[in-house]
Amino acid sequence: MTARPPGFIDAFTPSMLYAGDASGRPTYQFAYGCPRTALLPLEELKDALDRSLSAPLGRRLLQYGNLNGHPGLLEALVHRLRAWGLRNAAPETLLITCGSTQALDMVCRALGRPGGEAVTEAPGYPGFLGAAEVQGLSLLEVPLDGDGLDPERLEHCLASARERTGAVPSFVYLIPDYQNPAGVLLHPGRRQALVEVAARAGTVLVEDLTYHELRYDGPEAPPLGSLDPTNVVSLGSFSKTVCPGVRLGWICARRDLVLRLRRYGSLLGLSALLQEAVFLLIREGTYDAMLARYRRSYREQRDAMVEALSRHLGPGSGARFTRPQGGFFVWLELDPSLDADSLASRCERSGVYALPSRLFHPAGRPCPPGLRLAFCFEAKDRIAHGVEILARVLRGEARGAGRAAAG
Amino acid sequence: MTARPPGFIDAFTPSMLYAGDASGRPTYQFAYGCPRTALLPLEELKDALDRSLSAPLGRRLLQYGNLNGHPGLLEALVHRLRAWGLRNAAPETLLITCGSTQALDMVCRALGRPGGEAVTEAPGYPGFLGAAEVQGLSLLEVPLDGDGLDPERLEHCLASARERTGAVPSFVYLIPDYQNPAGVLLHPGRRQALVEVAARAGTVLVEDLTYHELRYDGPEAPPLGSLDPTNVVSLGSFSKTVCPGVRLGWICARRDLVLRLRRYGSLLGLSALLQEAVFLLIREGTYDAMLARYRRSYREQRDAMVEALSRHLGPGSGARFTRPQGGFFVWLELDPSLDADSLASRCERSGVYALPSRLFHPAGRPCPPGLRLAFCFEAKDRIAHGVEILARVLRGEARGAGRAAAG
Repeated sequence: MTARPPGFIDAFTPSMLYAGDASGRPTYQFAYGCPRTALLPLEELKDALDRSLSAPLGRRLLQYGNLNGHPGLLEALVHRLRAWGLRNAAPETLLITCGSTQALDMVCRALGRPGGEAVTEAPGYPGFLGAAEVQGLSLLEVPLDGDGLDPERLEHCLASARERTGAVPSFVYLIPDYQNPAGVLLHPGRRQALVEVAARAGTVLVEDLTYHELRYDGPEAPPLGSLDPTNVVSLGSFSKTVCPGVRLGWICARRDLVLRLRRYGSLLGLSALLQEAVFLLIREGTYDAMLARYRRSYREQRDAMVEALSRHLGPGSGARFTRPQGGFFVWLELDPSLDADSLASRCERSGVYALPSRLFHPAGRPCPPGLRLAFCFEAKDRIAHGVEILARVLRGEARGAGRAAAG
Repeated sequence: MTARPPGFIDAFTPSMLYAGDASGRPTYQFAYGCPRTALLPLEELKDALDRSLSAPLGRRLLQYGNLNGHPGLLEALVHRLRAWGLRNAAPETLLITCGSTQALDMVCRALGRPGGEAVTEAPGYPGFLGAAEVQGLSLLEVPLDGDGLDPERLEHCLASARERTGAVPSFVYLIPDYQNPAGVLLHPGRRQALVEVAARAGTVLVEDLTYHELRYDGPEAPPLGSLDPTNVVSLGSFSKTVCPGVRLGWICARRDLVLRLRRYGSLLGLSALLQEAVFLLIREGTYDAMLARYRRSYREQRDAMVEALSRHLGPGSGARFTRPQGGFFVWLELDPSLDADSLASRCERSGVYALPSRLFHPAGRPCPPGLRLAFCFEAKDRIAHGVEILARVLRGEARGAGRAAAG
């Protein structure tokens, strides 16, 4: 299996987020799922860190942390996840991880086996695709529609895998809420059917709830883990709800899976200091206040992007896009005649950064042309302007493709 | 292969470090390699974190960090490692890791293959043994003597592995400076021979330099990576020289190995904030001042332990112990008639915590009885007292064994 193509995670450095291009022209960063920097809780975290270290036992936060996670943070998380409906959440069914990145690595190592199969949504999250490829898993893709993963399609995929190999894929990875990159919500009406399909086939569902709390409108939907706590592994991250810099995520699973997963975890624990700080933010209500601020801003940014896309890429542009009800991403489906890589390069030359569809599929797999547009990083005015430039490039590209087809 | 026996890392929680036993009797913690809490740089780190976040670009430290590591920390590390003699150290030959724990995990995944072989010192570091076992590596042990790993024994081990399996083990893991758990220094005169043995056999040496800067007396010795930068992977940690709570370590290797290793690393980077703080501590000289303070205190703690052992466990006790010139650990070799597990349990019932030799060998492997005694955590007076208790238990045990043999 070839490695992930470079250009997504491999090439990322934070300075990219802020650099203009060489000529000093402004750039528009729709490529990476980084929160808007101005929203990040600088004062809140500074204060929480300071109080953590100033407490009578503050010096102990500089020692090794607990292996499964900071007991206070675990308790706070239990409370929160139960409110989401994950009724089996308990300190002994939880692990704190180094972001969802480590959670995905642990899942691929503990549930998959090199050469074995797992299922991903298509388009899928590159962080998961990379973790699976590194572990030598062979990925089966199930295409998404506007309501997320279709239980019938999944059932068919699992059945034909069993027919072909004699074994059912080890697990199915999905992002039910505001999927990365497609931006779609798994329809609440599909959720029960989905957990039943997985249980019947004898495979585990791994749901990534990273965007669960970033709902801007539309229906509320229960985590899959609330429908079947024994057969669903739920995981998430504090990167989008606190900030990426805390590098904290979590996994919630039934006890025997937790014991398998933790063998691949951080044997000497994660930073007790950062965990204590996040624990204080949750306990004192700052976390909820931050979430409200994030939702307000991201909703506006989403509106700005969707409005600009509607204005500049009407019918006839050959493009269609999702209208996400939460999360960070809009997916732009391109006219099949277009080449997404070349379009992304042309956009970049015009100062607009977006990621082409190829990065959201297992390496070397054919895929329909599309672009992921992250509305999380830029302020709304800049989003409107960046989309205008992108649309101009896209219309030029579409005309070019039309000419090529006619010629 | 059976999993690591519980009781070492799996059972560790930081509260153990501080808890007296149920009756309120004081306990003596010689079990874990945790720095003495009173030495940890509380004010220094608090100040560095505060200044990091108060800087004009402080908010950016809450974003994702650079994937290979914080550029400033990488530069500071390059400077430092070159001063150690690792002349190939450069930002592109370095990776920042989540402690040496993640570095060991990456080494086992990138250099080993499930079912393949690797070599460890005996007794060996449980963090490495665990990482290797999780990855399915089969471990060959080479016993240490008072001068560390013997090049001839290593050569013999590699040759007989090749004879037996047709393949040379993927790599050799060793802690040349103040080995964990044995406390011995790899003799400077053995180092050149060792890198030649490995290069000739076609296997990689992985040296763990975690204790390199914690020298209290005795000769200075060059890292193996300074003798053969192409065939040695060097790694280390900031856990002992700053504090465990920063969860930062590093790997230095030739460029192609770095590219292999980073596939198994933290795809979305580690905390930029903690890296910035450690960078400031190094740049401003606080790191060196801290190191001087650590060396002074740990030397005294080492003296207290060695003196107490000499006083209470003279010839006739059946015990022999190392006199480490650096690092955190004394290794207590027990009379072959004794059972280390039962002795460690009896010590624990008397309030003294130490780890039995079984934990320093691959699971299920026979091993001579011994105890690892960490002198890093307790203050010198407490060390003297704890050793006195331990010696009393040990003498009782030795008499018991004598009686059993006689009976």
